[in-house]
Amino acid sequence: MLAVFGDEALLQAALTFEASLARAQAAAKLIPESAAAAIGAVCDSARFEVATLAEEAAHAGTLALALLPRLRARIAEQDAEAARLLHRGASSQDLADTALMLQAKAGAHLIQREGRALTDALARVAESHARTPALARTLLQPALPTTFGLQASQWLLGIHQALQRFAWECRAALLLQLAGAAGTLQGLSLEVLERMAAELGLAAPVLPWTARRDGVAGLAGALAVVSGATGKLARDISLLAQHEVHEAFEPRISGRGGSSSMSHKRNPTGCQIALSAAIRAPGLAAGILAGLPQEHQRGLGGWQAEAPALATLFELTHGALQAMRVVVEALEVDTVAMAANLAASGVGDDIGLSIQLVGRCLDHYRRQCKDSAEPHIHAVHD
Amino acid sequence: MLAVFGDEALLQAALTFEASLARAQAAAKLIPESAAAAIGAVCDSARFEVATLAEEAAHAGTLALALLPRLRARIAEQDAEAARLLHRGASSQDLADTALMLQAKAGAHLIQREGRALTDALARVAESHARTPALARTLLQPALPTTFGLQASQWLLGIHQALQRFAWECRAALLLQLAGAAGTLQGLSLEVLERMAAELGLAAPVLPWTARRDGVAGLAGALAVVSGATGKLARDISLLAQHEVHEAFEPRISGRGGSSSMSHKRNPTGCQIALSAAIRAPGLAAGILAGLPQEHQRGLGGWQAEAPALATLFELTHGALQAMRVVVEALEVDTVAMAANLAASGVGDDIGLSIQLVGRCLDHYRRQCKDSAEPHIHAVHD
Amino acid sequence: MLAVFGDEALLQAALTFEASLARAQAAAKLIPESAAAAIGAVCDSARFEVATLAEEAAHAGTLALALLPRLRARIAEQDAEAARLLHRGASSQDLADTALMLQAKAGAHLIQREGRALTDALARVAESHARTPALARTLLQPALPTTFGLQASQWLLGIHQALQRFAWECRAALLLQLAGAAGTLQGLSLEVLERMAAELGLAAPVLPWTARRDGVAGLAGALAVVSGATGKLARDISLLAQHEVHEAFEPRISGRGGSSSMSHKRNPTGCQIALSAAIRAPGLAAGILAGLPQEHQRGLGGWQAEAPALATLFELTHGALQAMRVVVEALEVDTVAMAANLAASGVGDDIGLSIQLVGRCLDHYRRQCKDSAEPHIHAVHD
Amino acid sequence: MLAVFGDEALLQAALTFEASLARAQAAAKLIPESAAAAIGAVCDSARFEVATLAEEAAHAGTLALALLPRLRARIAEQDAEAARLLHRGASSQDLADTALMLQAKAGAHLIQREGRALTDALARVAESHARTPALARTLLQPALPTTFGLQASQWLLGIHQALQRFAWECRAALLLQLAGAAGTLQGLSLEVLERMAAELGLAAPVLPWTARRDGVAGLAGALAVVSGATGKLARDISLLAQHEVHEAFEPRISGRGGSSSMSHKRNPTGCQIALSAAIRAPGLAAGILAGLPQEHQRGLGGWQAEAPALATLFELTHGALQAMRVVVEALEVDTVAMAANLAASGVGDDIGLSIQLVGRCLDHYRRQCKDSAEPHIHAVHD
Repeated sequence: MLAVFGDEALLQAALTFEASLARAQAAAKLIPESAAAAIGAVCDSARFEVATLAEEAAHAGTLALALLPRLRARIAEQDAEAARLLHRGASSQDLADTALMLQAKAGAHLIQREGRALTDALARVAESHARTPALARTLLQPALPTTFGLQASQWLLGIHQALQRFAWECRAALLLQLAGAAGTLQGLSLEVLERMAAELGLAAPVLPWTARRDGVAGLAGALAVVSGATGKLARDISLLAQHEVHEAFEPRISGRGGSSSMSHKRNPTGCQIALSAAIRAPGLAAGILAGLPQEHQRGLGGWQAEAPALATLFELTHGALQAMRVVVEALEVDTVAMAANLAASGVGDDIGLSIQLVGRCLDHYRRQCKDSAEPHIHAVHD
Repeated sequence: MLAVFGDEALLQAALTFEASLARAQAAAKLIPESAAAAIGAVCDSARFEVATLAEEAAHAGTLALALLPRLRARIAEQDAEAARLLHRGASSQDLADTALMLQAKAGAHLIQREGRALTDALARVAESHARTPALARTLLQPALPTTFGLQASQWLLGIHQALQRFAWECRAALLLQLAGAAGTLQGLSLEVLERMAAELGLAAPVLPWTARRDGVAGLAGALAVVSGATGKLARDISLLAQHEVHEAFEPRISGRGGSSSMSHKRNPTGCQIALSAAIRAPGLAAGILAGLPQEHQRGLGGWQAEAPALATLFELTHGALQAMRVVVEALEVDTVAMAANLAASGVGDDIGLSIQLVGRCLDHYRRQCKDSAEPHIHAVHD
Repeated sequence: MLAVFGDEALLQAALTFEASLARAQAAAKLIPESAAAAIGAVCDSARFEVATLAEEAAHAGTLALALLPRLRARIAEQDAEAARLLHRGASSQDLADTALMLQAKAGAHLIQREGRALTDALARVAESHARTPALARTLLQPALPTTFGLQASQWLLGIHQALQRFAWECRAALLLQLAGAAGTLQGLSLEVLERMAAELGLAAPVLPWTARRDGVAGLAGALAVVSGATGKLARDISLLAQHEVHEAFEPRISGRGGSSSMSHKRNPTGCQIALSAAIRAPGLAAGILAGLPQEHQRGLGGWQAEAPALATLFELTHGALQAMRVVVEALEVDTVAMAANLAASGVGDDIGLSIQLVGRCLDHYRRQCKDSAEPHIHAVHD
Repeated sequence: MLAVFGDEALLQAALTFEASLARAQAAAKLIPESAAAAIGAVCDSARFEVATLAEEAAHAGTLALALLPRLRARIAEQDAEAARLLHRGASSQDLADTALMLQAKAGAHLIQREGRALTDALARVAESHARTPALARTLLQPALPTTFGLQASQWLLGIHQALQRFAWECRAALLLQLAGAAGTLQGLSLEVLERMAAELGLAAPVLPWTARRDGVAGLAGALAVVSGATGKLARDISLLAQHEVHEAFEPRISGRGGSSSMSHKRNPTGCQIALSAAIRAPGLAAGILAGLPQEHQRGLGGWQAEAPALATLFELTHGALQAMRVVVEALEVDTVAMAANLAASGVGDDIGLSIQLVGRCLDHYRRQCKDSAEPHIHAVHD
């Protein structure tokens, strides 16, 4: 995920945008085929010093101002007219937003893949422990008997639903941006927009969305919910792993979770990663939501605040899912301790309805997964 | 909306919950029909001192602890066994969550109704000003020619899409809560759950959701996006209404927008309400997102943090939509100033594509509205 | 605290503002003494229908627009000139901000009083358990031996320092607002400002602060830190109170902490209140921080977003301190369980430095308390 | 500032910590002088592959786990006993927190230096335009006459006061961390703590603060207030720079603020940087505040959430101050347009009190600056 939002991937996405724009403009007879070919040739093969460009982009305030002159110079070596036609009609934000959405699409695949692996792992835990008696706890106090499978079903359902919400947001947000300088498509056309969207595998927006950022905000909110649902799983496992409770544990991972001062310790490092993400994500989402009231056709500050926070949300959420997948796939469960804690609390042993609820949840999950062989990943496919 | 989330509506929702629970339990043969009748009779007609109950609930930490003894006493006057069977198997949180969802459902209707009125008003502005030349501004600077209708289309689309997201979240979140003491349905049954859901017009959850709050968090996030999209409209109108810009103005409303010290002023009070909501909403949503990692079968603090913030989000969002509906329905547009500002900026006058984009947006909006006569409100119907 | 920020207290503060303004204007020879007397007489004794005024203020967007005409009418019954001179030169925001600061000052006293009672109670726990062996836990795992007194010292220090920060913010923020219509004191004077500040027990600002809200934001942030530090205490006690840990418990409070479905339960209701506050407070503070970039001499939305969030922050923080004071003052400590958990973890029993650290902390705390008999409350005294 | 929080500076701070720890332990007779010398020699000169270490630290979850084995190996080449005594008694968090505070201290110097340069530049604007008539605007509408110098005074005061708050927070938060494995100083001593604090130029804490994070939260909140106050300045200048208002402008900076599509544009890029920071900062601060209720002697997730957010807050705040310093130092002011806008609004021309207020503000600012030659920077000096 770090690579997906890295400088190199951003540069590649930017070059993809320019080549695609030229091809679409040629198909729409706005520029000559030869110019599109010359632009495409350089964009496909161009190699730039990524670190230098990133620094220049930071100074200029946008990647376009740093990249375009260099790109233009290279194209001009082959075809001076093509160089003049590069990026014709497009704005810096067209490039930046489309590149971000290409990165977000790649990131969404990773999120859904990790997420599905985690919910599948949870489904296996739910099934194998459907009848394992355990103590249900409310307000951190013993409450009633349940089964460990029902607790796993709750974790599964929370993360599964959060991923469905995220898939919905991806469908709404993963749009091509082609606005031109001020959201009017001036110097461009709807045909160019539709062609580019088809080629890049992004949806064509009803209107340019330079200052209408509900899609980005929706994505951010959905990622924060995924982080929160994953954090709920982490919270519970870290509580169950307490020495005095001793019901479930992270597997030992070499080189992780050790202590520089206490070698006897076995730290819940996976849970820590997920809980840390769940603490950070809400504020990052709030920062993007706070930027929504952007000025006129392109705002001042609100737009610029989005990309770094969105990238961090993708990274945190993916990191949390990955960490907890590793935890759940090799989760160690102490059914003896579960039974003992349940018995010690004196709240009885009736688990019939809990078993029934596990079945209800797994049926629901499998039905939804069956409806589409790859239900989540499909959602963000082109 | 204040009434929807007021103490009286909460009490009424709580009584509805208890009566419905008893009826469903009787239908499922868990309690006698006579008991359900006795409970229902008192719940339907009961009158309580709302303020007193609200105070007691605040002390007890939950409405159930304050309400149930009183309710039990009244039922016992008619039928001692029915009094003992009141609330059987249910938990305080079942009552609180279901009541909150009944309130949220009523609130969602109001949001969608105001929202639709606002987007319809914006569609009228977009249509009537589809060809009104105006200056597009980026980074608060003159950019290119556009039409005022295209700007109105952007506002329309932003709010419309935010309302669609909210409708999706309502479908996901407006669930009955029936968990029993620890999320296991102990003393209850899936039949009771399904019957109650059908009667109350809420969806039946796959599993109880006492500590799995992605639905509530999703609602909160969606409300914040609606507030943000409405704030974007308000931001723009307040900028257009500047004395030096003079392009569009709020209508004068008697008793509002005046100044206690400067009688010449005409303040954008509607925009102020919407901008204030857009500033407050992200933090309120973040507070609910931050509470997601709740402990075990019922958490400590995370759940309790939700209801007041969610109610405030409903109130702020509704207030913002309402304020801006009033503004847009009687928006004063100075097309002469628009033309003059455009001319003064020297950026040309080509608005052909802007006109085309207005058409594209209105077609899209009307197609979506036609698909269901009342597209948004339907979404949250039972 | 609810009363401090209630409609009635707000009305009283508003009347105090108007009377004080008139007296200061008379002293500065800007209005006749007789007018000040007539205004003061009505303000001191006036009784208004609070609920009606609150509703009208909500419609008008500010209390001033609702209150002033009624007040003017009552004064005019005695003295027509005085009625015309009421509120002369002042703005609605002068009234609203000063009233908010009078409320905040009263609220700050309550915060500091509860806070000091809580830290004093923690100091007693720290002292009496300075040598009580206990298990230190890191990442929710057993770590090393410590004493319960050191843990109490940590709680004490965190809350004490948070209260010192809050005291600093009160000194910076509890200012009179007297700006006139546009922050220029037009129609007023620095003499009026200084006189009013002295009479009302608020500091005189260097400049009016109508759109410069760092003080309010600082207050909000400091309250969130107090809530967070109190939430840390609550988190720990709720973890220690787990059945399997069994080291420390909230006292039983009649009518609180019970369960409507499980009579055997003993819920940590005080901790729940504090944890809930700690979850809500950061987002509320963020909402106020987000409003800082306010437009020109008086902003649109940012200012209006502050007062309800600030009032909620005062209420949540006070409620958290109060709940935890009750918990700590009658905290039940199971030193046998502490010793047993420590022994079971096999981490040794060396507590010498922990005892030393308790002494270091208590010395520090007492020295700071001694420096001023009532150190915190003093900070916000007039 | 990027360098201050970069991987290389972090590594250097970590080495400084280890060398200082060893020296303090030798002085306290806990380890031989020769071991301290051997450790110090390697730490002072050690060169590591920064990128590799950063990656390993990310995998291990902490820098200590990645760095210490390598460091130990290098020391062992000279002195096997010294290698065993490296980091003796200290925890990973001691290293991480102290390194963060050393970085924060360096960052605080940069913040105060930029901040002071900005407030000095604003003082010059305030003074030179103390009598420049301008229009005061409230709710984005014309209100009353003022002077541009008074507006500059407001900006100055807001940022100056925010920097004073930040200085207070630095005094409270820039602490050595030396806790040992579980906050008990086990294997260490108060003498070591006091010696290290003195050597590293950080304050010695009353108690270790591994799970008591009010200081970090206070820093974060104060940085968000500085960002917000700087954002207020940026908001106003961007509004004044509107083509239709035309009162004040950013200077042109080569290679910045251009448009890839509209060469006529002159974008307020500095304001954009500051506004973007002001939008992002509140959520980042909320994320740190949300992590305060950390578990027991060292929490799970809350602590880990702090460092990246704090670093980003330092970078954003510093970037905002720097951008606006550049803007203000070469601010272009159109006094003719100011006079024309004022005249067109018909609100009169009385600016006497505004001039007086500028004097009051500048006197206050200079008095505070005089009290200590370098008032802000001093505050965070060792």
